[in-house]
Amino acid sequence: MIKTRLRESQRGIQLTQSPIRSLIPYARRAKENGKHVYHLNIGQPDIPTPPEAIERIRRIENNIIKYGPSEGLPSLREKVAYYYNRFSVHLHPDDIFVTTGASEAILFTLFSCCDEHDEIIIPEPFYANYIGFAHTSSVNIVPISTSLESKFALPEPDAFEALITPRTKAIFLCNPGNPTGQLYSREQLRELLGVVEKHNLFLIVDEVYREFCYDDEFTSVLTFTGASDHVVVIDSISKVFSSCGARVGFLITRNRDIQRTVNKYAQLRLCPPHLGQVMAEACYDFATDYIEKAKEEYRLRREVLYNGLQAIPGIKSYRPAAAFYNMISLPFSDSTEFCKWLLADFSHNEETIMLAPGDGFYYHVNMGQSQARIAYVINEEKLTRSLELLQIAVEMYKDI
Amino acid sequence: MIKTRLRESQRGIQLTQSPIRSLIPYARRAKENGKHVYHLNIGQPDIPTPPEAIERIRRIENNIIKYGPSEGLPSLREKVAYYYNRFSVHLHPDDIFVTTGASEAILFTLFSCCDEHDEIIIPEPFYANYIGFAHTSSVNIVPISTSLESKFALPEPDAFEALITPRTKAIFLCNPGNPTGQLYSREQLRELLGVVEKHNLFLIVDEVYREFCYDDEFTSVLTFTGASDHVVVIDSISKVFSSCGARVGFLITRNRDIQRTVNKYAQLRLCPPHLGQVMAEACYDFATDYIEKAKEEYRLRREVLYNGLQAIPGIKSYRPAAAFYNMISLPFSDSTEFCKWLLADFSHNEETIMLAPGDGFYYHVNMGQSQARIAYVINEEKLTRSLELLQIAVEMYKDI
Repeated sequence: MIKTRLRESQRGIQLTQSPIRSLIPYARRAKENGKHVYHLNIGQPDIPTPPEAIERIRRIENNIIKYGPSEGLPSLREKVAYYYNRFSVHLHPDDIFVTTGASEAILFTLFSCCDEHDEIIIPEPFYANYIGFAHTSSVNIVPISTSLESKFALPEPDAFEALITPRTKAIFLCNPGNPTGQLYSREQLRELLGVVEKHNLFLIVDEVYREFCYDDEFTSVLTFTGASDHVVVIDSISKVFSSCGARVGFLITRNRDIQRTVNKYAQLRLCPPHLGQVMAEACYDFATDYIEKAKEEYRLRREVLYNGLQAIPGIKSYRPAAAFYNMISLPFSDSTEFCKWLLADFSHNEETIMLAPGDGFYYHVNMGQSQARIAYVINEEKLTRSLELLQIAVEMYKDI
Repeated sequence: MIKTRLRESQRGIQLTQSPIRSLIPYARRAKENGKHVYHLNIGQPDIPTPPEAIERIRRIENNIIKYGPSEGLPSLREKVAYYYNRFSVHLHPDDIFVTTGASEAILFTLFSCCDEHDEIIIPEPFYANYIGFAHTSSVNIVPISTSLESKFALPEPDAFEALITPRTKAIFLCNPGNPTGQLYSREQLRELLGVVEKHNLFLIVDEVYREFCYDDEFTSVLTFTGASDHVVVIDSISKVFSSCGARVGFLITRNRDIQRTVNKYAQLRLCPPHLGQVMAEACYDFATDYIEKAKEEYRLRREVLYNGLQAIPGIKSYRPAAAFYNMISLPFSDSTEFCKWLLADFSHNEETIMLAPGDGFYYHVNMGQSQARIAYVINEEKLTRSLELLQIAVEMYKDI
């Protein structure tokens, strides 16, 4: 008898990997070969975590690290509710669930709002892991394309309406946007809320980059209290407070049915990480000054990046309004090959750069293939040098 | 036009809540009424977390709490691999994935090993949250019943084989057992491995209570290297190191296909909590002495509990071999009503006890209805008083 090999699940095979991850072996080899790699590819901020938050951890007094409440520490939920006053959003702590990063908040949202084979409409390009979260929760993504030429502006409401089917359950936005750095206006959000109210859908908005808006004011979708039952917001301390490893996010909704359901998923995994929550509390205690400084730093880098990119012949870009990402168009048909070449073959004074290939942020195949995402989470000096390297590399690659 | 109410998902509605949680409002009211409640209902150990682990957190030196590797900190994975030598299990750090608690390890296992509508066979009674994890991953549970009369002994291999269908993908055990405190022997595990090899299934074993075996030696299923491709083990620091709130668990497998798949699910949620991992490392540095002391404390309590229960007329029990749980049979047909009565109506010197109703640990309906689970995670004095209260309450309830 020939034994069949015991295999992993089909869904496990089908789960796609982050496009950012696929270049990692190339980066490792570049480093092994002595090259310095400037990481423009990942959204890991280089700005220090609020020192008060680290200090709070150092002063921890528990003698048992116990299970906490499934919905998160009451003291943290209160502080987050208070924090939202910054955006003229008035929340009750019960509206706020602490999750294990925004990742878990997204999963809880999809499981709580959508059944298997339900559809969610998402403007593309979008954060690539949405594909994995939708796959895990058996939800189908219906992408609505936006373009670099229009700075990835939100499509008109009727373009969303045209995609609505009986299986549509939600419109899902990332505002401000990763990977685009776009910012949606109050009026645009109001119009989309009209669409979700008309068709009885949820409007799910990932607002984890909300604090970094450089030109216009940010509008949280939670501002529109009239449409509360339709709204779910994803939030996190990861980017705002440079605390990605703490794994503390939030799911915020005033919809009682969704609250009750999220609570069940939350109870199932017992509780969010206690130590991260302790840190998070301190972050919100010292939010205002810290955030202002971080934002000014990113604003400065945005200018460095924008000016640097404008000076490189062949690259098309725009001034991103928010977050710390920028999609750019390269003068090549296959940016993935270019990104690999940057790591494998290119170097200048033993340095190179790592970008995130653009097509991984699109759900449609054959889109964004000449694009790449740049994250400006390295300091001005490194960013300037990275732009030099990009210019030299683009010039050189053209001739290959 | 009458607007349809925007509702949560059907799967969210269907997700069952933990049976332990349903009594919480009763407990809250009892406390509001000034009653002291001895919690025999939850598996939150009262033993202090290793002080060295708390101390390690107090000495944290990071200035940014960054994303770590998706599969966990390399230093922690090495320590866990070393720790397993205690059980004559030899692991490579690559076999070990750090997860956000055992909860996430179970979800990753089900998603990686099983497709939707695949079946897993689990001896019941079992940890009630398995139902929620299976529901979330759309896996069907096929329970195989065990009985209090036989101290919840593992059914014979042919009883498992009789339940295998073309959709069966795994046998899932909790060893040592929650809620039963049973311990499966090396020979029993060997026989079950024969079954999974014959039918090309996975053997998934939740071993989070492995350190607390009071009579016989524990055998990890990882010992059987010949069947490595079939084995996935769930582990956690929560119970062993009294660190439930740290949210650090482990998924261990030598099956490369499963490793690759788990890695994808791990990447999707970016990384496990950094601070919990730092704590966990210190736990494993000081494992041996700490665990020995904790085990002696639980062993003592087991005797107190066993002797106390034997002395209560009408209660049937047995001496649990491991973990810190005991299922008991009450002389009433509906233990849930009794548990509610304990909180709502009973008191003795303004004290009462809280138990976990037994039927919630059974997948079959109408089973375990006269049973309840006791967790011995309170100290000897409190346990003794709790047993007094139980005796008085049983006597009183009989006459109602």
